[in-house]
Amino acid sequence: MLTVKEIGKKAKEASVILAGLSTEKKNEALQNMAEELNIKTNEIIKANEKDIEEARKKGIKTALIDRLMLNEERIAGMIEGLFALCELPDPIGKGTVIKRPNELTILKQRVPMGVIGIIYESRPNVTSDAAGLCLKTGNSVILRGGSEAINSNKAIISALALGLEKAGLPTECIQLIEDTSYDRVNELCKMNEYIDVLIPRGGNALIKTVVENSTVPVIKTGAGNCHIYIDKSADFEMARSIIINAKTSRPSVCNAAEKLLVHKDIAQQFLPKALQDLEEIGVEIRGCEETKKIYPSAALAQEEDWDDEYLDMIICVKIVETIDEAIKHINRHGTSHSEAIVTKDYEMAGKFLSRVDAACVYANASTRFTDGGEFGMGAEIGISTQKLHARGPMGLEELTTIKYLILGNGQIR
Amino acid sequence: MLTVKEIGKKAKEASVILAGLSTEKKNEALQNMAEELNIKTNEIIKANEKDIEEARKKGIKTALIDRLMLNEERIAGMIEGLFALCELPDPIGKGTVIKRPNELTILKQRVPMGVIGIIYESRPNVTSDAAGLCLKTGNSVILRGGSEAINSNKAIISALALGLEKAGLPTECIQLIEDTSYDRVNELCKMNEYIDVLIPRGGNALIKTVVENSTVPVIKTGAGNCHIYIDKSADFEMARSIIINAKTSRPSVCNAAEKLLVHKDIAQQFLPKALQDLEEIGVEIRGCEETKKIYPSAALAQEEDWDDEYLDMIICVKIVETIDEAIKHINRHGTSHSEAIVTKDYEMAGKFLSRVDAACVYANASTRFTDGGEFGMGAEIGISTQKLHARGPMGLEELTTIKYLILGNGQIR
Repeated sequence: MLTVKEIGKKAKEASVILAGLSTEKKNEALQNMAEELNIKTNEIIKANEKDIEEARKKGIKTALIDRLMLNEERIAGMIEGLFALCELPDPIGKGTVIKRPNELTILKQRVPMGVIGIIYESRPNVTSDAAGLCLKTGNSVILRGGSEAINSNKAIISALALGLEKAGLPTECIQLIEDTSYDRVNELCKMNEYIDVLIPRGGNALIKTVVENSTVPVIKTGAGNCHIYIDKSADFEMARSIIINAKTSRPSVCNAAEKLLVHKDIAQQFLPKALQDLEEIGVEIRGCEETKKIYPSAALAQEEDWDDEYLDMIICVKIVETIDEAIKHINRHGTSHSEAIVTKDYEMAGKFLSRVDAACVYANASTRFTDGGEFGMGAEIGISTQKLHARGPMGLEELTTIKYLILGNGQIR
Repeated sequence: MLTVKEIGKKAKEASVILAGLSTEKKNEALQNMAEELNIKTNEIIKANEKDIEEARKKGIKTALIDRLMLNEERIAGMIEGLFALCELPDPIGKGTVIKRPNELTILKQRVPMGVIGIIYESRPNVTSDAAGLCLKTGNSVILRGGSEAINSNKAIISALALGLEKAGLPTECIQLIEDTSYDRVNELCKMNEYIDVLIPRGGNALIKTVVENSTVPVIKTGAGNCHIYIDKSADFEMARSIIINAKTSRPSVCNAAEKLLVHKDIAQQFLPKALQDLEEIGVEIRGCEETKKIYPSAALAQEEDWDDEYLDMIICVKIVETIDEAIKHINRHGTSHSEAIVTKDYEMAGKFLSRVDAACVYANASTRFTDGGEFGMGAEIGISTQKLHARGPMGLEELTTIKYLILGNGQIR
């Protein structure tokens, strides 16, 4: 097995080749990769079954098993994703030209980052999605998936490698770190020599570790402690429908709602039916003391509940005195991912949209829309929750950087 | 004296006010700041004289004293810089709107970062330039200048504060950390709660410390170990003129050349006169063993010379076998700032431009042009030498981030 350093070195070498490829060549490789995934679907499902079995034995919770699970439909989604990337415009080489008064010609041109490291958890479709996005943008990628998905990831990577080979590209463009011990993550975080950017995708704990230990530049993604705030003027029917959708349509994803804030003036009228509806769908209700007075079967929220990303069928409810308290609570406990207000009041909507400091702030819609596809970007590598470089769903352009090329004929200053 | 934490908290509070200001209000404050600098010019020069005197006592080298020095002309430059900012378009609030098939309206809007921390060394004009750029982009700024410029910086800051007050803005928009001990820098690096981005400006050692210790996102700027590569087909006269300009026109700045690489086929013909010219202007010559054979009075380069940014009248020369060796050397020892080739060969120029991995890569021009003004951007906060967020001269837009605002009428997914 190669060391992380050897993988890094090979990735850097491959990145020089990738940076020089035409869009046609990259699309050819993507198509071949998609075809190989199609051919190997059954093998991938078999490998995934092994992972699922292991996970069940370990007692991993249902929502996480949902993330881990691959079936024909999800693999078809991965294949479709690679084909869809072929249709998207290639950002590399695009740019602008400035001619300066001294006759210098300055080209500001989009170029690949070089080598991108992606550290993720249980979702094996990330392996194919991330590989495709990096290839389309001319970057080498080093993938470090979760130990629970190792068999699925190895099966996916070997299919993708066949696709690369058929297109005549080095398989080192897309590499998987098969040793899933945490020490390998730490090595990645310090490998400034070979890695240009690290993108951790997953829960808060993973992201915190990477951010705190990394000397390589990091783009934080994914952790979503998302709130829905129900203002006193909210349409109750709309509010219920948005909460149920944001909480239960796919509880294991980062744009699912985890917290519900309710204005005190409507709590008594609104909460009982809304929480009962949630409970009937199987959601565990936790809440502040005021919530418990209105809905006694709720468990009492602990301090850490306000910061937790459950990724599960749990919601935690807080009754607030004012919209300002809601905004303050969100800016303190949120992860700057997706936050929503439900209101009929124009002024309150405006206040919430401008004061909440997050990548995506909604008025009267479910947080579940935070997604590259839903935003019309075609594909995404994740949701950036930081302010530097990219914020919100990250598409192709966010995986590139720029370079100035200056053409002169002897100019001095 | 306020603690760094208190300064941070005040900066964050002020940033909320700043984010809501109109362009007109921000321009009014910039004009007032410029006028106060004009009124206080003599006081600032007196404060600066104190700093210069201290620096001379400490035996600080000439190139650094040049960086520290303020005179009427340089203060006029600072004033002009603030007025020029008023003329530049305000990036805040600009954006694009997408209407999705499900009727969601998505606004992708430019917003301030929030609080920007700037850690710099001896140049006091940075105090005014950085304050102006941050104000124009609606960001609070925390400035931590070098101890050697503390009197100048305090004088500049108190003039700027008067300008803010006249415009009715809180002086906490622009704060200086007066305690210049290194512990305060370390505190800044960990203050994720209050600081959104840190921009270190200065030498390699400062930048390395900040990058390695910071949990706050960092934009690396400034360190410039810039190379000029003289290809075998170079026009000798152009090559000499570019080297002399890049090395000696202002040796204390980051876009000055520090290293000279020369193709072996022309070294014997080219070097003696070029190095003699440099020596006559007062440049100390260091070189590899091959260089010493051709130009025996050169000092023998040590291993660390290849990585050093001298910021002084010193140049270090290496003779290379091929352009590939030159590119490899630059990619290994350079700081990804500005690199130049002098050549008449179209193919060699193309190879150098595409393979050298730096923010600004020149063919047949001096590296001294790497500058926001020279690139037509109007103003700059520094030269980013990283790939994330910004690369090369950073203007107003690079001090902002984006935010998605999503307007719905009950949409669920």
